[in-house]
Amino acid sequence: MQSTTINQATQGHYPIPEKMRAAVLFGPGDIRVVDRPVPQPGYGEVLVKVALCGTCGTDLKILDGHFPLTPPYGQFTPGHEWTGTIVALGEGVDEFSIGDRVCIEAHHGCGRCENCLAGKYTACLNYGNREKGHRASGMTADGGFAEYVLHNVSALYKMPDSLSYKSAVLVTTAGTGLYGLDTAGGYILGQDIAVFGPGPVGLMTVQACKQLGAANVFLIGTRDNRLEVGRQLGADHIINSRKADPVKTVMELTKGLGVDMAIECSGNVATPQQCVQITRRGGKILFVAFYPGQVTFDLSAVVRGDIIMYTTRGEGGNNVKRAVSLAAQGRLRGEELVTHEFPLENIAEAFRVMRERVGDPIKIVIVP
Amino acid sequence: MQSTTINQATQGHYPIPEKMRAAVLFGPGDIRVVDRPVPQPGYGEVLVKVALCGTCGTDLKILDGHFPLTPPYGQFTPGHEWTGTIVALGEGVDEFSIGDRVCIEAHHGCGRCENCLAGKYTACLNYGNREKGHRASGMTADGGFAEYVLHNVSALYKMPDSLSYKSAVLVTTAGTGLYGLDTAGGYILGQDIAVFGPGPVGLMTVQACKQLGAANVFLIGTRDNRLEVGRQLGADHIINSRKADPVKTVMELTKGLGVDMAIECSGNVATPQQCVQITRRGGKILFVAFYPGQVTFDLSAVVRGDIIMYTTRGEGGNNVKRAVSLAAQGRLRGEELVTHEFPLENIAEAFRVMRERVGDPIKIVIVP
Amino acid sequence: MQSTTINQATQGHYPIPEKMRAAVLFGPGDIRVVDRPVPQPGYGEVLVKVALCGTCGTDLKILDGHFPLTPPYGQFTPGHEWTGTIVALGEGVDEFSIGDRVCIEAHHGCGRCENCLAGKYTACLNYGNREKGHRASGMTADGGFAEYVLHNVSALYKMPDSLSYKSAVLVTTAGTGLYGLDTAGGYILGQDIAVFGPGPVGLMTVQACKQLGAANVFLIGTRDNRLEVGRQLGADHIINSRKADPVKTVMELTKGLGVDMAIECSGNVATPQQCVQITRRGGKILFVAFYPGQVTFDLSAVVRGDIIMYTTRGEGGNNVKRAVSLAAQGRLRGEELVTHEFPLENIAEAFRVMRERVGDPIKIVIVP
Amino acid sequence: MQSTTINQATQGHYPIPEKMRAAVLFGPGDIRVVDRPVPQPGYGEVLVKVALCGTCGTDLKILDGHFPLTPPYGQFTPGHEWTGTIVALGEGVDEFSIGDRVCIEAHHGCGRCENCLAGKYTACLNYGNREKGHRASGMTADGGFAEYVLHNVSALYKMPDSLSYKSAVLVTTAGTGLYGLDTAGGYILGQDIAVFGPGPVGLMTVQACKQLGAANVFLIGTRDNRLEVGRQLGADHIINSRKADPVKTVMELTKGLGVDMAIECSGNVATPQQCVQITRRGGKILFVAFYPGQVTFDLSAVVRGDIIMYTTRGEGGNNVKRAVSLAAQGRLRGEELVTHEFPLENIAEAFRVMRERVGDPIKIVIVP
Repeated sequence: MQSTTINQATQGHYPIPEKMRAAVLFGPGDIRVVDRPVPQPGYGEVLVKVALCGTCGTDLKILDGHFPLTPPYGQFTPGHEWTGTIVALGEGVDEFSIGDRVCIEAHHGCGRCENCLAGKYTACLNYGNREKGHRASGMTADGGFAEYVLHNVSALYKMPDSLSYKSAVLVTTAGTGLYGLDTAGGYILGQDIAVFGPGPVGLMTVQACKQLGAANVFLIGTRDNRLEVGRQLGADHIINSRKADPVKTVMELTKGLGVDMAIECSGNVATPQQCVQITRRGGKILFVAFYPGQVTFDLSAVVRGDIIMYTTRGEGGNNVKRAVSLAAQGRLRGEELVTHEFPLENIAEAFRVMRERVGDPIKIVIVP
Repeated sequence: MQSTTINQATQGHYPIPEKMRAAVLFGPGDIRVVDRPVPQPGYGEVLVKVALCGTCGTDLKILDGHFPLTPPYGQFTPGHEWTGTIVALGEGVDEFSIGDRVCIEAHHGCGRCENCLAGKYTACLNYGNREKGHRASGMTADGGFAEYVLHNVSALYKMPDSLSYKSAVLVTTAGTGLYGLDTAGGYILGQDIAVFGPGPVGLMTVQACKQLGAANVFLIGTRDNRLEVGRQLGADHIINSRKADPVKTVMELTKGLGVDMAIECSGNVATPQQCVQITRRGGKILFVAFYPGQVTFDLSAVVRGDIIMYTTRGEGGNNVKRAVSLAAQGRLRGEELVTHEFPLENIAEAFRVMRERVGDPIKIVIVP
Repeated sequence: MQSTTINQATQGHYPIPEKMRAAVLFGPGDIRVVDRPVPQPGYGEVLVKVALCGTCGTDLKILDGHFPLTPPYGQFTPGHEWTGTIVALGEGVDEFSIGDRVCIEAHHGCGRCENCLAGKYTACLNYGNREKGHRASGMTADGGFAEYVLHNVSALYKMPDSLSYKSAVLVTTAGTGLYGLDTAGGYILGQDIAVFGPGPVGLMTVQACKQLGAANVFLIGTRDNRLEVGRQLGADHIINSRKADPVKTVMELTKGLGVDMAIECSGNVATPQQCVQITRRGGKILFVAFYPGQVTFDLSAVVRGDIIMYTTRGEGGNNVKRAVSLAAQGRLRGEELVTHEFPLENIAEAFRVMRERVGDPIKIVIVP
Repeated sequence: MQSTTINQATQGHYPIPEKMRAAVLFGPGDIRVVDRPVPQPGYGEVLVKVALCGTCGTDLKILDGHFPLTPPYGQFTPGHEWTGTIVALGEGVDEFSIGDRVCIEAHHGCGRCENCLAGKYTACLNYGNREKGHRASGMTADGGFAEYVLHNVSALYKMPDSLSYKSAVLVTTAGTGLYGLDTAGGYILGQDIAVFGPGPVGLMTVQACKQLGAANVFLIGTRDNRLEVGRQLGADHIINSRKADPVKTVMELTKGLGVDMAIECSGNVATPQQCVQITRRGGKILFVAFYPGQVTFDLSAVVRGDIIMYTTRGEGGNNVKRAVSLAAQGRLRGEELVTHEFPLENIAEAFRVMRERVGDPIKIVIVP
């Protein structure tokens, strides 16, 4: 392929082809890698050559057609946990240079609705409206399962040299947990925290909680190998809920008080009620997962306990910046959660492995 | 009866008998009015001659034996919405004078647990522990269905002369809604609010929302006469959910956006899901009710919308003081919610009327 | 003049000329009304035909060349309290229609810096950087002392029909006080508040405080006629600090406790110390004024009292929307503060009258 | 001396004498060690055998008679940074056992004023009122410059075995900085922080900031040896303001942006203005020091920058508990700040050394 000139953009020594390979969703479960034109960055945007793109549970929902406001079939490349190198700058961009290695947050708000003005852009009231400037990379706009991807400078963070691309994928994941913690107050020093679900979000959140000074972090899950990873990442107590009653165990270990905060990262519909049962009076519950169906729990007990239930989606409020800082300080480990790599051309196979839990993957990344 | 001297207390011109009539719970559903000694105020306490004591849904739970940590049968007088006149001061009290008319909040915390130290005394970790100083009047300690009652000065508020005793009962009720609003941020100026449940808490909350500058207040219920009262107290839109779909109606009236905050005061297990459906991205839900069973709703939608779910119980955080101020400014109407009065001796009948909704009572008060 | 077509904009029945009259700053104190091309709205912008533009103390600083980051002499039209009618829509605008009457907030953030992402766009880190999208109308970009002005849709609010243009100017002013209150917590129900400085900001803040349920509002100033306006707008106590010691008076009226919050709107360097002296332990001080020089006060007393000192500039956080709502509810009076009107051609005279306090003006508006 | 029985208290194997040695303030600068009766713990109190008591700048003010609301001369033992072993329990105490090693916070609120109810007990409205239950140990009630001291259980924290008494003294000091950080939001992960004043509070705050994930911590002072201690405790940059301009240096190191938060621990009247100059738009300043006189700074710049100025005194909000947790995790070093020890009998000499900075002491402790 022939390199071309990017309009209104400073170009470095990175030759940019006209076409690229990109995974495109053609129907429910039908993702194919095809040729696509390399996009050109507009005002406030940059073009990134993708190094890796992580997969996450939300991608399965997108793949199956169960995610709201995705672009039409045949026109949409998912992937919202990517990292790579900036190769072209759009107009008005001086925050970055060609060659900068970056990690991302998915959401760029419209910047003009009430929620964006109040700093809540992951809840942008123009969500999915590209004309008004909203972009959720890999959800409502083309994402990182491709050789190149565009994004707004508001949602990119320069990576320190010390950070590998694999780690960078997990920095975004850490941002999810941090945004939740931030929304729930952020000051957990000396507190007892229970984390449900030792998937990538849960495991990164365990680390974040310990780094922020949590006294005791309880990690609850169903698979010993993941729980063991959690212990190595700092969990003080791991509880396999198939072997021990998590409610009883946490209550015993907290001398009947329960935890200051329960963080639900599992997406299991039975877990919210366990959160209610182990959260002390005046405590907090944080939900950062999605559920396959309705959830049932004892709301009266929540009210009687003066408990606040926080929720967040995505990685807003400068929390990816915070995650980058923590990683740069050498206090956030992500690389070891990457258990599987697939070349872009095999993305369909990657999703099969993920869905069927072949080899018990934690984080699968796609390499374009 | 003969008047007696209160030890270590300044006494005014109110003769205090040795004995009083008090409603005592002797078993599930078995409340009887009997003679009891008039209690003597200790350090930081006052003795109040009860003018009126309101009844509320929680009293039915207490009556039926379904409320945690109540004192043993035969030893407990419920009633937590009382008002009256101070007739004796305990040691160390100079906040009040004999003859002061007061209204109350139910909860006095232990003052030494983590939650009390952080200002969350309605979630006192020594809840129910009288030895450590906790008192929830009419719940874990003797309350106001009696001629006299003790309370801590921390939980009493002097009433302006302009306020009737009937209004004073509803001031406590208003405190419940205000504590919820306070916890949820308190600054609702210009916002759209939906209130579910036109009972006393809901109706007082409607007024509070309007006084705090809410743009549109939607009141949703099932009984036209209560909704009509709500309209007169300031609700901009009333919706009878037996006649119109509240979700559809609110969404239409808010042009598809939904409300900034939904406040659940109904205690109906079906209503929380309606709250979820009508709350806009980045909005809030406030639960101040108790439910007869588990509650089921679409938690994923809450997470996807970055919605925070607040809960509060009781009337903490100086919010009864705030309610008194609003009433003193002539901006809070409560008296008209008192639809029924019963003498103390007929308290069992009062609860029957309440339970069976005879004559559709809003607030029933007991007069000792 | 001849009407022209606005590129990429829907145009209604408002003929738009090619040229307009605009006040341009040519040097310190040198403001002249000259012909200028009517600007064309870009993406996310609208063109407004100015009805009125208020003047404020900041304009004098701008006029004298003492305000940071204003555009070069000969190229800049100040005026940041304007109101008018939308006459042309830029690309991607569907929030408004041609003919909508609007009021404004001055600040539009870049939408991509850390502060904008966190909702603090009045503190945009790209303040003054037009290339990155920041615009402070009448401060870093052309404002409303002209027949037409551009602004971003993020910073415009549709006015209800009931609101006059004069009132609309003061709605922006009210937004300043509300933003301060919002930042300081916003929930002042039942609290005692002292407002220093009965200028437009102070007088609108007095009203806001009363509407939000403040118990006692003390207004302190030096001119009886303004204080009297304050009393009519709701101040419970007015104190002329030339006739009575404001510290002593407030302390007496609050029984030695002091106020919950002192709001400094006077810009007098001596007033901050008075704020310190009358604010109770655990209270708040809010500064929304600018000072002619350094300010000296007893910071130790602030620390000893656990007092938080808030500051805000401008009208961020959706607070102009809130002010519009309050005005639409008939609970905010602004029109009567407009004491003087000058045609645009006489703007220099208007500033002389303002600076020399001829006829003791409260709010002077310019009519293009 | 003969051991005696403590009324209404469980007594362990610690014989308690009738008399003890205690430093008593007899006049300005006149502190003498005399015999005093060992006090008996009342309801909710414990008696502690003092192991060590730290001295702090506030003690010099108390010694000189410049501190408000201290008890009368001849009746008052100062000392508010003590640690020791519980030797007797008052009525109603089950939080502790005889023999528990504890550290403290100074303030116990009345538990019944508006501020205490809202969790702001360091700003107790009954400050100094022992009858209503307030106690600021060593400030308004007898403190730890004695062999024995009483305190309320609300203000005591059990120490892990791993913690030395010297460290325990500094845990209280760390609580001061943490309370400030808590009040200012607490979530400083990834932020740049400047700490002025490498005294004990500043040095403990440097550590706390690093542990909470601050990106860059700048420590500014005037003495190289203290700055060097700060570097060893985690400061990323140390600036001797006698050798380099701190404002210029910090601005250069933050690329012109300034820090997210400046923390003023120096008590130097010139430093607040430096805080203003190095704090970025939308940032925060935290004052936790007391000043010898009025403070002067550019308040307009603070307002223009939308900067909030927080202040706290003491160690409220469960922050000593948090400090204990951090220390128990091995993440807080305090022992090395103890540069001098004096026996109780030499306390006057200790204060002379402190005042005259003989041997450049950081933390001087008194050993009864």
